[in-house]
Amino acid sequence: MTIKSKNITWHDGQVTRDEREHLLGQRGATIWFTGLSGSGKSTVAVAAEHALHERGRLTYVLDGDNVRMGLNKNLGFSPEDRTENIRRIGEVAKLFTDAGAIVFTSFISPYRADRDQVREIMADGDFIEVHVHADLAICEERDPKGLYKKARAGEIPEFTGISAPYEEPEKPELVLDTGKYSVEESVAQLTAFLEKKGYLTA
Amino acid sequence: MTIKSKNITWHDGQVTRDEREHLLGQRGATIWFTGLSGSGKSTVAVAAEHALHERGRLTYVLDGDNVRMGLNKNLGFSPEDRTENIRRIGEVAKLFTDAGAIVFTSFISPYRADRDQVREIMADGDFIEVHVHADLAICEERDPKGLYKKARAGEIPEFTGISAPYEEPEKPELVLDTGKYSVEESVAQLTAFLEKKGYLTA
Repeated sequence: MTIKSKNITWHDGQVTRDEREHLLGQRGATIWFTGLSGSGKSTVAVAAEHALHERGRLTYVLDGDNVRMGLNKNLGFSPEDRTENIRRIGEVAKLFTDAGAIVFTSFISPYRADRDQVREIMADGDFIEVHVHADLAICEERDPKGLYKKARAGEIPEFTGISAPYEEPEKPELVLDTGKYSVEESVAQLTAFLEKKGYLTA
Repeated sequence: MTIKSKNITWHDGQVTRDEREHLLGQRGATIWFTGLSGSGKSTVAVAAEHALHERGRLTYVLDGDNVRMGLNKNLGFSPEDRTENIRRIGEVAKLFTDAGAIVFTSFISPYRADRDQVREIMADGDFIEVHVHADLAICEERDPKGLYKKARAGEIPEFTGISAPYEEPEKPELVLDTGKYSVEESVAQLTAFLEKKGYLTA
């Protein structure tokens, strides 16, 4: 129902997701990057974010910097807390997706069950699992934060790929092989996927 | 640093909040509605959302429907859980604000300390506390969800205004008196505030 009163149109209920997407000229989506430390998740996310922003799209990156220090600052690294960490990130990504944004999440998220739980709360097509892949040897050679060195020295317990498992996605929407392709090529692959699937228009 | 490579401009670091705000033509902000049940928080939020959307602004409403069923579904109603409920909502609102959105939160949020904690994590000007006010007698007469009736019958323990306190904001950015003004007038007061303070341009 719509009631026209003076210059303002009144509506029952909230502005819809469709209306926001139409305003933004894009379809809301969660682009869930998963992969080993050093696989290039953040590098590709930042580069993709810029590429989309330059095309006038609204993007946002959820990562350790803005999540672990804020929403999830009361979580530690126990198995339960790691699962809750990913669950909350998934719920926030869902809200951003509903708002019409294209949101990137950049977390190792090593466990299939945790990622699948996020997929389950999302509507079909809203969750785009992207396996950012490079062989462990390559990631360890890159070691941008010196974490593998510390993990090999036993200074970091339960480090994914060294002393804790990484469970590869079985049916990701996309695999970006950063051992084979440049950042530029990976971004091109991702944006081509988004374009083909209709995420960049509304 | 910016590196130009083929058709894509590469940047160190993420797209900035300023860049997103420029894209959206608005300044990100959290409009924190607080007030008794039946004071008109949701009604005004939805009407304001439509008014801003029609002016081409990106808005989003965080309320019980999309938060209590998702992000905060593992929280109950103990004092600790109520505080954690508001804390998480504040952190999510902060992320939306950083994304450049104008986000409305529509929760009774009866405790001053909880609201002040949210104000503290936000940058100056990002947190707009709006006291949606109507006398208890008016709210109780409206009783849109029949909750006051149940509370008076003792069926709802610790109901704000009846058997639990509501701590009025001491220095809210805005008071909307829905006992005196219509929804339309309240929305006009809010949008005039946002316009005057520069939130609707970037």
